[in-house]
Amino acid sequence: MPYVTVKMLEGRSEEQKRALVEKVTAAVSETTGASEDKVVVFIEEMSKNHYAIGGKRLSDEA
Amino acid sequence: MPYVTVKMLEGRSEEQKRALVEKVTAAVSETTGASEDKVVVFIEEMSKNHYAIGGKRLSDEA
Amino acid sequence: MPYVTVKMLEGRSEEQKRALVEKVTAAVSETTGASEDKVVVFIEEMSKNHYAIGGKRLSDEA
Amino acid sequence: MPYVTVKMLEGRSEEQKRALVEKVTAAVSETTGASEDKVVVFIEEMSKNHYAIGGKRLSDEA
Amino acid sequence: MPYVTVKMLEGRSEEQKRALVEKVTAAVSETTGASEDKVVVFIEEMSKNHYAIGGKRLSDEA
Amino acid sequence: MPYVTVKMLEGRSEEQKRALVEKVTAAVSETTGASEDKVVVFIEEMSKNHYAIGGKRLSDEA
Repeated sequence: MPYVTVKMLEGRSEEQKRALVEKVTAAVSETTGASEDKVVVFIEEMSKNHYAIGGKRLSDEA
Repeated sequence: MPYVTVKMLEGRSEEQKRALVEKVTAAVSETTGASEDKVVVFIEEMSKNHYAIGGKRLSDEA
Repeated sequence: MPYVTVKMLEGRSEEQKRALVEKVTAAVSETTGASEDKVVVFIEEMSKNHYAIGGKRLSDEA
Repeated sequence: MPYVTVKMLEGRSEEQKRALVEKVTAAVSETTGASEDKVVVFIEEMSKNHYAIGGKRLSDEA
Repeated sequence: MPYVTVKMLEGRSEEQKRALVEKVTAAVSETTGASEDKVVVFIEEMSKNHYAIGGKRLSDEA
Repeated sequence: MPYVTVKMLEGRSEEQKRALVEKVTAAVSETTGASEDKVVVFIEEMSKNHYAIGGKRLSDEA
């Protein structure tokens, strides 16, 4: 029963999220041998002012 | 000093959440031997479009 | 379908962990209305050299 | 730059894990529009005594 | 490539968050030897009704 | 009471980890206004076969 968390910037459409969980579930099932109905996917969205690379938030970039 | 995270669908009332942290804290304290005042509980809520089982989001179910 | 993570220092016995997941599951089910068989509990153990309060690891305390 | 965490029971082979990260990365890239080299995957393994459904650890099942 | 998550109560200003990621990144780089541009920082905010110590949520304190 | 998690590749020395939690705690305290004794730091180590960028695990790189 794999549990998958996808953390990404906010802004993807519902259609993209729908496709995301479908394709990721298939990939996890195929490679781990877990049946698809046992795969759980959580989406977590970040805002640009809560995410930094190299000490600089994306919201602070020029 | 146990740290407990409860991840669940949004929609519970404040009264339910208040009871949740109280009862979970008691359960953790009783079974681990940590004193109640050392137990920390975080609640994380998910929306139905960010949670999928079997490749299908709860928001996409008929 | 609540997902509960209990993060605590290593060292509890199997008996304590068995009681922990049982009591926590009951507390979550009772207060959220989710049926017990839908409650998932993960235990995560920390070692004393990977856990610090006030800038000092537990393994460094006198 | 999506960050993906796959939490699953220990026991998969290195070959399975290698395929897992490859396929999941492709699925995330294809559906989110992020380039593959920006996708990060973490694998977290659980042991059967640290994972419970319905208040019962997998290690305690008959 | 250290990944740092800072979980804290909501309410800090943008200026505080900007300084937080800058100073934390410098501290991680200096002590781990990772270059600053490899350090990633995530900020996660909690509300007072989702955070409890000793079985009592901060929102329930007198 | 900020909670900080630092996730990084295994291999740092105890001395590095000791300095890491000390410096990170100071940085968080200074920028958020939380007192140092309220800052909690968790270290989580990854192995190279459980961490992938661009679909390739670090353990599979030439």
